[in-house]
Amino acid sequence: MILHDYFRSSAAYRVRIALNLKGLQADRRYVHLRRGEQRAAPYLAVNPQGLLPALEVGGGRTLTQSLAIVEYLEEKHPNPPLLPPGAEDRAWVRAIALAIACDIHPLNNLRVLQYLGRELNVEEARRDDWYRHWIRVGFEAIESQLMQRAADRFCFGEAPTLADVCLVPQVANSQRLKMPLAPYPRIGAINDACLALPAFAAARPEVQPDAE
Amino acid sequence: MILHDYFRSSAAYRVRIALNLKGLQADRRYVHLRRGEQRAAPYLAVNPQGLLPALEVGGGRTLTQSLAIVEYLEEKHPNPPLLPPGAEDRAWVRAIALAIACDIHPLNNLRVLQYLGRELNVEEARRDDWYRHWIRVGFEAIESQLMQRAADRFCFGEAPTLADVCLVPQVANSQRLKMPLAPYPRIGAINDACLALPAFAAARPEVQPDAE
Repeated sequence: MILHDYFRSSAAYRVRIALNLKGLQADRRYVHLRRGEQRAAPYLAVNPQGLLPALEVGGGRTLTQSLAIVEYLEEKHPNPPLLPPGAEDRAWVRAIALAIACDIHPLNNLRVLQYLGRELNVEEARRDDWYRHWIRVGFEAIESQLMQRAADRFCFGEAPTLADVCLVPQVANSQRLKMPLAPYPRIGAINDACLALPAFAAARPEVQPDAE
Repeated sequence: MILHDYFRSSAAYRVRIALNLKGLQADRRYVHLRRGEQRAAPYLAVNPQGLLPALEVGGGRTLTQSLAIVEYLEEKHPNPPLLPPGAEDRAWVRAIALAIACDIHPLNNLRVLQYLGRELNVEEARRDDWYRHWIRVGFEAIESQLMQRAADRFCFGEAPTLADVCLVPQVANSQRLKMPLAPYPRIGAINDACLALPAFAAARPEVQPDAE
């Protein structure tokens, strides 16, 4: 497998964690988002959406969209599982993942911040307010949902799931914007529990070969 | 089951289509988004995220996030299937769905348009430009991915999948903003094929009991 990756892409970070949790190896191709390599012809031939990550899985198939990739890894390599057995519980875990992947992360994507700056003349301080606003709104709701299972070590139960795979990269983004985690004690505790595991620690942006 | 619904919510529209395709009935509770009922205590007790849809499935369980709900319906009621059998093909279908659900729809959500207007003083014409921009960027990429299977009647194959469930509501949003579908012939043809099916036609916003 070949993972098209960038150290600071939080969607790619999710896939790095999932690969590590499953004990899978993938070669890397680095796509420099700040230099716009995702919009250049070589990468558009891999993923016409021009977004990271993409995972080449052989047989000429390239998978896109981080959650679709993690679900694929789950189907092909079910152990250790990243989703619990019961359908209602699986939906609960997926809902946490989607609350991050749909309702926080896309609003704070690089291309969106660039549109705010270039097209709408929103200055940097107000772009940072925007960034923090959507994390705050999202984290408040997620914290309240996670409190439904307050005794668990991870988002759901005693082992990481798809929800943790999405939560940890989003926490990393909040910390880049210097947002305190104190208002979200459950998110903070889960983040600590995850980063104590080598699969999460080795996927962090700052330890990637392309980190700057 | 009880679906918390609003005629114009395109995330709720996805779940209405999926329920219809599966031949499932759900009672309805209407949450008026324009009046802010999603942020009032009664609905926040159902879904602390304050977003639609939510599906009460019995046993005190309430599911949130439209894609998590559709995956749940797929697991509990596998026929007719909304995902193909092969893992790579399932990932392809999910990637189309997520390209809409993560990379177009959240940017054009009501709460985001309200933030642009109220907090960033972006006037209506430039909010509409924003809305159209993200649909255009998203549809261009999705059109190119759908052309990989140009001979199919639907996004994937000869029956609707999760990808179609997400595509049709997004096309409806583009049409509310008077965007022509001509640049996206494959999206247009798939949209027509879907709306010829009663499951899609009966889920349209304009035929819901709470439509205005």
